[in-house]
Amino acid sequence: MPAHDEGHLAERSSYRAFHMVSTRWADNDQYGHINNAKFYEFVDSAVNAHLLIADALDESIGLVVDSGCRYTSSLAFPDVIEVGIKVDRIGTSSVRYGFAVFRRGVTRAAAVGHFVHVYVDRDTRRPKAVSGKLKAVVDNLKAE
Amino acid sequence: MPAHDEGHLAERSSYRAFHMVSTRWADNDQYGHINNAKFYEFVDSAVNAHLLIADALDESIGLVVDSGCRYTSSLAFPDVIEVGIKVDRIGTSSVRYGFAVFRRGVTRAAAVGHFVHVYVDRDTRRPKAVSGKLKAVVDNLKAE
Amino acid sequence: MPAHDEGHLAERSSYRAFHMVSTRWADNDQYGHINNAKFYEFVDSAVNAHLLIADALDESIGLVVDSGCRYTSSLAFPDVIEVGIKVDRIGTSSVRYGFAVFRRGVTRAAAVGHFVHVYVDRDTRRPKAVSGKLKAVVDNLKAE
Amino acid sequence: MPAHDEGHLAERSSYRAFHMVSTRWADNDQYGHINNAKFYEFVDSAVNAHLLIADALDESIGLVVDSGCRYTSSLAFPDVIEVGIKVDRIGTSSVRYGFAVFRRGVTRAAAVGHFVHVYVDRDTRRPKAVSGKLKAVVDNLKAE
Repeated sequence: MPAHDEGHLAERSSYRAFHMVSTRWADNDQYGHINNAKFYEFVDSAVNAHLLIADALDESIGLVVDSGCRYTSSLAFPDVIEVGIKVDRIGTSSVRYGFAVFRRGVTRAAAVGHFVHVYVDRDTRRPKAVSGKLKAVVDNLKAE
Repeated sequence: MPAHDEGHLAERSSYRAFHMVSTRWADNDQYGHINNAKFYEFVDSAVNAHLLIADALDESIGLVVDSGCRYTSSLAFPDVIEVGIKVDRIGTSSVRYGFAVFRRGVTRAAAVGHFVHVYVDRDTRRPKAVSGKLKAVVDNLKAE
Repeated sequence: MPAHDEGHLAERSSYRAFHMVSTRWADNDQYGHINNAKFYEFVDSAVNAHLLIADALDESIGLVVDSGCRYTSSLAFPDVIEVGIKVDRIGTSSVRYGFAVFRRGVTRAAAVGHFVHVYVDRDTRRPKAVSGKLKAVVDNLKAE
Repeated sequence: MPAHDEGHLAERSSYRAFHMVSTRWADNDQYGHINNAKFYEFVDSAVNAHLLIADALDESIGLVVDSGCRYTSSLAFPDVIEVGIKVDRIGTSSVRYGFAVFRRGVTRAAAVGHFVHVYVDRDTRRPKAVSGKLKAVVDNLKAE
């Protein structure tokens, strides 16, 4: 695959938290590498695990309204993966996350992207302000 | 979910080919709607099915180097889905596709996005010019 | 793959309802055929779609407590698949389904298996008797 | 879910190797627990990782011809999972594996099952004798 130059976005130091993902046999598609759609499963898991473990999702749920990814190099089962996340922008009821997907032990990211959550009320599904525990957790993920 | 105005990109008339997808029980995540990562499985399937059925992938394979999606409304199993695709730009060895995901029978798209393939040699994985049968097929998908 | 002789279980006439599944690019694993785990996604979707469309899951939910599959031949994207289902046994709170996975237009099944649902209360998750609308729907799927 | 008594098959001491799986947000289905089909992804990954890391798949590939699972309790993202594997029987060209899926830190398995590989030539896809490095690796997984 032709290399993109993602500059500092491909560096581990740009991210504030990391989530480990064990790859699966079925992640590899017919071309013998991890299918592009799986990268979104990884970041979804990284962000949600971070919020759940911090108990920041008690009243709201996060719905994805925008996502994107640029792929620089291939990964393949049984690689172990580390997803770096950071917060780029906190809106009234939304948070834009930046992410990068690294093969364990490799310095530069195989892919970088973004992922936007709108937080909504669990029952009504209407947008809810980012506040309280959730605000504290995402503040802490803010890129410098 | 708050509505984005995707304008004409959300209209069926913007797309040149459609691919039907039957949803699966496991597509729904814990929030009872189709998980965001699945939308990329749908477009990957739509583009590859179109190319395979046209026998346009005999010498090259298409690797995804960039993708993105904006989500406007939820879909849920057992909805039947139609993915509209078009070609936005044909480069030397790459093609940028536009896509939209519709619930069957619904006029406006639930999500719109893009998806960039770089075509590479099946064995060497080095970029290959878009030519011959592949060129004809993607030319035919070009948005007016 | 070596052929098993599944006898009449591999015949379409053994099944009482059919559910169409469109395969996806990511269903194919590295060996270029649909991954074994996906077959369970297909039958899960077939049974749940049948029950949801018949509105038979209003009070209970079906949890899988036992499943199994024997694979006779390979399927691959972009094949279209038909899953045949039947009911083998109705217990107090459980139903054992038989299933077979066919490539569209092919007479004999590529795989046959079973799938056991225990129906539980949506809130308490305690077993609930198979009754009312659900009982009528599964009675109707009983193999002769 | 009603409990099955799987006896010693639910105990960690019955298994000869363990493979760690990090769960994903999308593993949870609409009922808030890991979907039944995912358990087969886990064991597929456990067996293939074991064989790949031991470099036992250089000449053959393993195709699944039979699988089954009995589910005793629910697992949910972000649980970490350990899949125990053992070999029950080594045939001429096939191996029957037993497996159990444990939540990390929990003594008894949430699910137990079996998984049969037929080893075939990578190119011809005709059955091949289990021999050499593969034989040594599976011998070593034999249950006492």
